[in-house]
Amino acid sequence: MNEINTIRAVFLNSQRDALIILDQTLLPNEIKYLSLSTPEEIFQAICELKVRGAPAIGIAAAYGVYVVLRNFPGDSFEEFYNEFIRIKSFFASSRPTAVNLFWALKRLDARVLRDRRKPLANIKEALYEEAAAIASEDEEVCRQIGEHALTLLRDGWGILTHCNAGTIATTRYGTALAPIHIGTQKGYRFTVYADESRPLLQGARLTTWELTAAGIDVVLICDNMASIVMKQGKVQAAIVGCDRVAANGDAANKIGTSGVAILARHYEIPFFVAAPISTIDMNCATGDDIIIEERPSEEITEKWYKKRMAPEGIRVYNPAFDVTDHELISAIVTEKGIIYPPYLEQLPLFAGRN
Amino acid sequence: MNEINTIRAVFLNSQRDALIILDQTLLPNEIKYLSLSTPEEIFQAICELKVRGAPAIGIAAAYGVYVVLRNFPGDSFEEFYNEFIRIKSFFASSRPTAVNLFWALKRLDARVLRDRRKPLANIKEALYEEAAAIASEDEEVCRQIGEHALTLLRDGWGILTHCNAGTIATTRYGTALAPIHIGTQKGYRFTVYADESRPLLQGARLTTWELTAAGIDVVLICDNMASIVMKQGKVQAAIVGCDRVAANGDAANKIGTSGVAILARHYEIPFFVAAPISTIDMNCATGDDIIIEERPSEEITEKWYKKRMAPEGIRVYNPAFDVTDHELISAIVTEKGIIYPPYLEQLPLFAGRN
Repeated sequence: MNEINTIRAVFLNSQRDALIILDQTLLPNEIKYLSLSTPEEIFQAICELKVRGAPAIGIAAAYGVYVVLRNFPGDSFEEFYNEFIRIKSFFASSRPTAVNLFWALKRLDARVLRDRRKPLANIKEALYEEAAAIASEDEEVCRQIGEHALTLLRDGWGILTHCNAGTIATTRYGTALAPIHIGTQKGYRFTVYADESRPLLQGARLTTWELTAAGIDVVLICDNMASIVMKQGKVQAAIVGCDRVAANGDAANKIGTSGVAILARHYEIPFFVAAPISTIDMNCATGDDIIIEERPSEEITEKWYKKRMAPEGIRVYNPAFDVTDHELISAIVTEKGIIYPPYLEQLPLFAGRN
Repeated sequence: MNEINTIRAVFLNSQRDALIILDQTLLPNEIKYLSLSTPEEIFQAICELKVRGAPAIGIAAAYGVYVVLRNFPGDSFEEFYNEFIRIKSFFASSRPTAVNLFWALKRLDARVLRDRRKPLANIKEALYEEAAAIASEDEEVCRQIGEHALTLLRDGWGILTHCNAGTIATTRYGTALAPIHIGTQKGYRFTVYADESRPLLQGARLTTWELTAAGIDVVLICDNMASIVMKQGKVQAAIVGCDRVAANGDAANKIGTSGVAILARHYEIPFFVAAPISTIDMNCATGDDIIIEERPSEEITEKWYKKRMAPEGIRVYNPAFDVTDHELISAIVTEKGIIYPPYLEQLPLFAGRN
């Protein structure tokens, strides 16, 4: 019925020998799929945000490990496992903030160790199964997040979102955008206000593209226009994705998210975080423990532009994420249900169920 | 000693037959001065933000009226005045939000009417005198704003600013940046966090350029990074310029300013508005009465970019200004002194002194 049902941003090819990703750095001007099979290609694709979004990164890394190791020669488990650990560490170093990456790699590791007595061929097949399970579970997780989050929204609402936590950041549906997609399929009419999300413009390039393809009304704004659209009463809720939730409910997400949360609080608009249980990191006491990736200054001064847009040699600060204080979050929506404050008490009940 | 002393963004040439402006749409890549003498050229330069900043627009329009009318033929006051009104209305329609534009044109109008009995040659000379007075008074106003605002800042502080309310938005010194320039000349060391200020990037292109030229430490950030730099304790005050202040203290300024004010309140950082008395519009009861200019969607989706950065045909909302609620403003700094709340009571005392 709408294109969103066919868009897939990360999957394995039918021969199972290459990871296929939709190159999100080229959207919306070009729809190009890349076929990746070497560790370097996969690492680069993650680093350069050709594949992005916390769940999609985890899936790409998991399929990537399988693709790289499926032709590992010989039959020594020890040699195979050494190589597995090397590839795992390499992929784990591609981006520091999203916990899903580490979670997916850890899950593969556990599976390999569980099957260590089996022939290598079976272990390789187990890697495939585990990666495929991560992907298919992600789709179900997103669907459930969407169903739960939809209960927090009303037909006709304006909804502000930041960055892209949509279909193309996951296997399907997305996290923050899941209730929008699922609600639309059920006949809800939303107007989504999409922050462009500087410097990489995931909102302008990806969220608008994905929502338009799904027939959903979307209005592009600059990040600094969130305040005016809230003040003008255009927005009844804000919902964002999440790269990591600490044990106290502090949530790391795309740079600018904490600002949206503060504005939402000021204008008394609910602010929701959509997060798979796998995003909750109980080893992280608070947001202060979350490492924030700093990215190259060129992303702000040069990228996308015809000409450099700031003087040569200027100092630039380019953190890729920020942490939203748990006190600003009205609810955290997971596949297991909606978590309300106090998070310190409630999160362990949900995180434990994973 | 530093280049800032020589930068002038708007002035009359020595023959007095052309308005010279620094084309701010080309900065920081190209330093190009334009010589304008027809009404259309001047109107376009204001519309297209080649000259920008509330005080600079007023000065450009005032000098522009003189340049256009200095060769008006004949000696009929009535014909001259009809033409004056036509040009005045034309220039007044170039941008709707900044009150300085209307204020400067109104001041010329009053002068023309005051001198109506004099020969046209004298009236033309009076137009020149009035425009030159507006420019030189602006420099003095900015210097005084800088001196007053400096008393609110401390050596070593990090200071966040939005858009460009600097030397090149005025005759000299700027408004929000005046205390930075004047403080630096007195030996203060500041670090300025400059919001890039989407979509037109006045912060990235102009503020960084102007401050670097003056030897001032400046760090460029995206608009959505204001929250993280405040949270990290990098910023001890925020100061912005202003296009119009309503009678209750509500202040219109570049889009995104209200968001900065809300963040500053959240992080308990003082938020200052620097505004010449001419910016105070006692005819405007509250910010709701201020007309907010909406600008073309292409500024967000295409301008500056190699390729379009959002899908074709997407809906875009592009307000150029927003209104900061008076409750969020710690003080309004004018050339006559610092105005503290309650503004409804205090503003008339200052506005009356103009």
